[in-house]
Amino acid sequence: MSENDDVARDLAHKARAQKHKQVVDAKIAAATRDKGLLLVLTGNGKGKSSSAFGMVARTLGYGRKAAVFQFIKGAENVGERTFFASHPNVIWEKCGEGFTWETQDRTRDIAAARAGWEKAKAALADPDISLVVLDELTYLVTYRYLSLDEIMPAIEARPEMQHVVITGRAADEALIAAADTVSAIRDVKHAFRDGVRAQEGIDR
Amino acid sequence: MSENDDVARDLAHKARAQKHKQVVDAKIAAATRDKGLLLVLTGNGKGKSSSAFGMVARTLGYGRKAAVFQFIKGAENVGERTFFASHPNVIWEKCGEGFTWETQDRTRDIAAARAGWEKAKAALADPDISLVVLDELTYLVTYRYLSLDEIMPAIEARPEMQHVVITGRAADEALIAAADTVSAIRDVKHAFRDGVRAQEGIDR
Repeated sequence: MSENDDVARDLAHKARAQKHKQVVDAKIAAATRDKGLLLVLTGNGKGKSSSAFGMVARTLGYGRKAAVFQFIKGAENVGERTFFASHPNVIWEKCGEGFTWETQDRTRDIAAARAGWEKAKAALADPDISLVVLDELTYLVTYRYLSLDEIMPAIEARPEMQHVVITGRAADEALIAAADTVSAIRDVKHAFRDGVRAQEGIDR
Repeated sequence: MSENDDVARDLAHKARAQKHKQVVDAKIAAATRDKGLLLVLTGNGKGKSSSAFGMVARTLGYGRKAAVFQFIKGAENVGERTFFASHPNVIWEKCGEGFTWETQDRTRDIAAARAGWEKAKAALADPDISLVVLDELTYLVTYRYLSLDEIMPAIEARPEMQHVVITGRAADEALIAAADTVSAIRDVKHAFRDGVRAQEGIDR
């Protein structure tokens, strides 16, 4: 390719980029508000809880506080807990004792879920906490351990600038309707189906 | 509801949970391998980069090393960089100077992308690094700054147990075919379209 071709290509790129910049700039100019967001990360794919933990890291990067409630995860310590739980700006609560088909004890699971929810409610009322992660909360609704009639008022009454991230499969339509940002994570493929177990640092 | 109803409900739950446990246990028993995974997080929804940063936290939780290459992000410091970049087990490289429609300078963008890719290649050859994040790499392929013919051999030749996470919209079909785990993150709704700008701790 000659030098002239390069120059022409660069100019064409610049023209396209300028046009794109106008569109993006207009969108950015229209988005001026700050707001405490309710985010829902749902779907069957990999990346719901890990995304929430990425937002914990971002929050800590600004010197703010985060509270994480893990409603379903088992008793074992995993990477995210080892890494974050000892941080002075993090509250980290394991509220469940494993997936419900592991414990096979509905009464105990409900008690653990309710005890966890009471602690989460306290975080949702605390203006010093910038981010509240309700990890795998959707399963509590699906299993009818906790109803949205109890969950939504606490979320709606939270401090104005507090962000809330809810993760888990099959998020209820009412939760999706109430959220500001919703991502549905589709499982295109997963190494688990090729016989690879949960990998440290990736899945746990 | 009488006490008998409660007992009946608990027993029914236990029976369902036992059946589910058998199915899950069989799947877990079939997944026994460890493998360095190639993960691709694509789609237009919120949660691709934040998910990768959650996996950085998990990796650090096991005392392992992570390397992050941000190919498109702008010059400003954001939460994830402030939080992770000073960690002794983290390599953090900003390889771009903003989205390409911001700079409008194709030649400079290509140079920045190539310089970043050379550093990423070194990480992909280093068995001490447990996780390599190639954040927003897909755009380099889309804009033809870098070809998959250059990218794939370095990924395929990496240390056996090293995990790689690639994020960005519109991942190439060849990249998806080569990956072990792929999530397509659908933008169901995003606060940006309601006039809310990127929020610290959530989007940056």
